[in-house]
Amino acid sequence: MNQEFIDHIKALIKNKAQSQLKDELQKLHPADIAELLNDLSYTEAKDIYRLLDNEIAADVLVEMDEDIRKDFLELLPSATIAKRFIDHMDTDDAVDLMRDLDTEKQSEILSHIDDVEQAGNIVDLLKYDEHTAGGLMATEMVKVNENLSMPECLKEMRAQAEELDEIHYVYVVDDDDRLQGVFPLKKVITSPSVSKVKHVMKKDPISVKVDTPLDEVAQIIEKYDLVALPVVDSIGRLAGIITVDDVMDEIREQAEKDYQLASGLSQDVETDDNLFKQTKARLPWLLIGMIGGMGNSILIEGFESTLTTEMSYYIPLIGGTGGNVGTQSSALVVQGLANSSLDSKETVKQVSKEAVVALVNATIISMLVYIFNFFRFGPTAIITYSVSLSLFSVVMFASIFGTLVPMTLERLKIDPAIATGPFISITNDIVGMMFYMMLTRLLS
Amino acid sequence: MNQEFIDHIKALIKNKAQSQLKDELQKLHPADIAELLNDLSYTEAKDIYRLLDNEIAADVLVEMDEDIRKDFLELLPSATIAKRFIDHMDTDDAVDLMRDLDTEKQSEILSHIDDVEQAGNIVDLLKYDEHTAGGLMATEMVKVNENLSMPECLKEMRAQAEELDEIHYVYVVDDDDRLQGVFPLKKVITSPSVSKVKHVMKKDPISVKVDTPLDEVAQIIEKYDLVALPVVDSIGRLAGIITVDDVMDEIREQAEKDYQLASGLSQDVETDDNLFKQTKARLPWLLIGMIGGMGNSILIEGFESTLTTEMSYYIPLIGGTGGNVGTQSSALVVQGLANSSLDSKETVKQVSKEAVVALVNATIISMLVYIFNFFRFGPTAIITYSVSLSLFSVVMFASIFGTLVPMTLERLKIDPAIATGPFISITNDIVGMMFYMMLTRLLS
Repeated sequence: MNQEFIDHIKALIKNKAQSQLKDELQKLHPADIAELLNDLSYTEAKDIYRLLDNEIAADVLVEMDEDIRKDFLELLPSATIAKRFIDHMDTDDAVDLMRDLDTEKQSEILSHIDDVEQAGNIVDLLKYDEHTAGGLMATEMVKVNENLSMPECLKEMRAQAEELDEIHYVYVVDDDDRLQGVFPLKKVITSPSVSKVKHVMKKDPISVKVDTPLDEVAQIIEKYDLVALPVVDSIGRLAGIITVDDVMDEIREQAEKDYQLASGLSQDVETDDNLFKQTKARLPWLLIGMIGGMGNSILIEGFESTLTTEMSYYIPLIGGTGGNVGTQSSALVVQGLANSSLDSKETVKQVSKEAVVALVNATIISMLVYIFNFFRFGPTAIITYSVSLSLFSVVMFASIFGTLVPMTLERLKIDPAIATGPFISITNDIVGMMFYMMLTRLLS
Repeated sequence: MNQEFIDHIKALIKNKAQSQLKDELQKLHPADIAELLNDLSYTEAKDIYRLLDNEIAADVLVEMDEDIRKDFLELLPSATIAKRFIDHMDTDDAVDLMRDLDTEKQSEILSHIDDVEQAGNIVDLLKYDEHTAGGLMATEMVKVNENLSMPECLKEMRAQAEELDEIHYVYVVDDDDRLQGVFPLKKVITSPSVSKVKHVMKKDPISVKVDTPLDEVAQIIEKYDLVALPVVDSIGRLAGIITVDDVMDEIREQAEKDYQLASGLSQDVETDDNLFKQTKARLPWLLIGMIGGMGNSILIEGFESTLTTEMSYYIPLIGGTGGNVGTQSSALVVQGLANSSLDSKETVKQVSKEAVVALVNATIISMLVYIFNFFRFGPTAIITYSVSLSLFSVVMFASIFGTLVPMTLERLKIDPAIATGPFISITNDIVGMMFYMMLTRLLS
C-alpha cells in the first residue's frame, strides 16, 4: 500500500472512473481495502464503499480501524448497517462492531436483521463481558452428533459448511448438545468411511467456559498451539468457538498494554489519536510525577541544614539510579507474570534472588562512584562516602521494592503493570533522596 | 498444574510406581508434561522421560523451556536424539532444536536420521537465517498439482495427510513446483467432485519469500487472519509453510523485547535466569545511567555560582519530569512503528503533532508549579520563574526529542526501541539540568 497507489486511486475517484476503480478493488484483499480507506478522506472512502459487494464491504468494515469505523457507522442508517454489513458477518465480528454503538442503535439494527437465528445469537453474545471467552467467541462452527456415522457426518458437515469461510475442527456433541469431542477436518479424508464419529473424535477436548477471562484463553491457545478453541456454558453445552486470529490481537494488546503502563500511559493510546485522548492518557502520570517532585523539594528543604553545594551535584545520580533499577526489576516481574514463567506465590524466592542480583549491581556502581569521588573530593570528604552509601542503599531498596510491589498486586488481583514505570521511578526518587539526606546527616 | 499434582507425581517416581505414572502421563497433553518436567529435578525428569512413547517424548521436547532443553540434549548421545526425537518431529521443530547445538553435534545427529528426505530438509532449513521466513518454516504440507481433478487430488491428499498432524490448506503447484494457488481443506467436502483443482483453488495466494524478515511475516499473518502462510523461494517454488502458532511466539517475543529495552534490559532475560545472565542484561544500562549522573554532577558544579539552596530543591522534579515525558513519547513512537500504525516517513507530521500535545502538558505542569512556588517563595523570587520555565522547556524538548530519535533510528534501520527507557531519561535528565541552570543564570 504505497503512496503512488493511493494517489492513483484518488485520481480515479476524482475522475469518476467507476469501472477502473472496481477492477482495482477486486484485486485487493479486504484488509488492504480497509488500509486504503484509512488514507482517504471521508467522501472518497464513501465513494469506494459504494462500489463494493455486500460481502466484501462487511469484511472491510471488520478490518477497519475501530475509531474510524465508529464514526462511519454513526452516519449510516440502522437498516443499512443490518442489511449491508451485519447480515454478511460472522457473529463475533458483528458483536464486536455492535459494542461500539449505543443500546438504542443496537436494538434498531437488530430489528432489521432478516436472519432471526443470527439476530438471536448476537443478542446472546452481547450479554457476555467483552473480556471473557463468551464476549469473543463466534457461534459459526461445524457441530455434529456423536452417534452419526462418518458418511452421515460428512453430509451434515456439507450442509453446515456452506455458510462458513474456513473450518479447522469438527465439534462433536451428545443429544443434549454437550461437547464430547473434537476432530480435525483432515480426519474426514483419512478416516475409513465405516467409522462412527464417536470413534474418530478425540475425547475430552481442551475447552474454556464462557466466563473464562481472555488472558487465560490466549494462554491456552498459545500453550496448546490451537487454531480454534471450543467454549462451553456452565453445564458443558457447546456455546461457540474462539479462533486464533482473534486471540492474536488480544496477545498483542496485552503486551502493548503492559508496555504502555510501564511508559506512563494510563490508557490505550496511539500516535494517531487526537489531542484530547493523548492528553487524557499522558497527563495523569505526569501530574503524579509532578506531585512527587514537589514532595521531594519539601523533603530536601527539610534537610536544609545538612545540604551542601557539593551534595546537590549528586541529586540526579541517586534519584536516576533508583528509578533505573526499580524499572528493571518491576519489568522483569510483570513480564514473568504475564507469560506465566513466574508465579505470584514465589514471592520470597523471587525477592531473595533479586536481592542477590541487586547486591552485585549495588556493589559495582557504588564502588565506581566511590573511586571517582575519592579523586574528586578526597578520601576524607563526607560526600565521598555518603553518595556511595546512598547509591548502594537505593539500588538494594529499588530492586526489592520493584519486585515486591508487582508481586503483591498480582496476589491482590490488581494489574501489576500499574506498579511499573512512573510509580516505581517516582517512589525510588523520593526514597533515594531520603537515604541520601539521612545518611549524610548521620555521617556529618 | 498445581503443587499437589506435582507432589503426587514426585511420590510416584520415588516409589517407582511405573504403571501408575504411565497412566497419569497418558492423561496429559505434551505441553503439560513439559511444564511438569520444568518443576522436577533432572533425575526425576529423566525417569518420566523414559516412560514416554517416542512420539510424545518428541512433542514434549518441542514444548520444553529452551534453556532446560539445551542442558538436557547436551547429555544425550546423538543417536538417541536422532531416533527418539528428530525422527518424530516436524522439520521446523527439529531445526529449532538443532540450532541450540554446535555444528559437530548437528552433523552427528543428522548422520543418525533414518529418513534421508527429512535429514535433507533439515540441512536445507538450517541454512536459513533464523530471523527469516525460511528459518521458521516447516516442509510438512499438502501439495498437489494444478492439473489434478478433485478425486485425484483427494487420493493424493490422503497419501500425504497420513504423516501430518493437522492440515488447514492445500497448496497447488504447477509442473515446476511453483506456487499457483491455495484452497482451504473445507473445499474438499463442499466442491463438486467433477471440478479440477485449478478451478477450486484461489489464485495468487498471499505468500512470503524465504528471506522475508519474521516481523513482516507476523504482520502478514495477523493482517490477513491466516492460519498458515506459504513460503516460496526466489523463483516462486513452494519451499514450506509457516503456521500461526510459531508466529504467535514471535509476536509475543517482539512485544516483550521492546518492553525490555524500554525498561533498561539490554538482552532477553527472564526471572529464572541465573545471576550472571541477569547482571549481564541489567548492568550495562545502569552503568550508562551512572555515567550520565556523574556527568550531571560535573554540569551542576560548573554552575556553582548560580546554584542556591532553594534551587537544589527542584533538581529531582525537573530531571524526573523530562524523563517521564520522554519515556511516554518514545514508547508511543516505538509501538506505533511496531504495529505499523505509524510510518517512519511521517516524521515531520508526528513531531508537529507531538509538539501540540507537549504544549498542553507543558503549560499545565509549569502553571501548577508556578502557583505552588508563588505561595512558597513569593512572586518576586527568581526561582518561582526559573523552575516553571525550565519545566516548560524540558517538557517541550523531551517530547520532541523522544519522538525524533526513535523515528530517525527506524529510518537508519536501527531498532528504535534502544532509544526508549534509560537512554531517553538520562538524556532528558542532563538537558533538563542545563535548561534549569542556564535559565536561572539568565534571570539572575
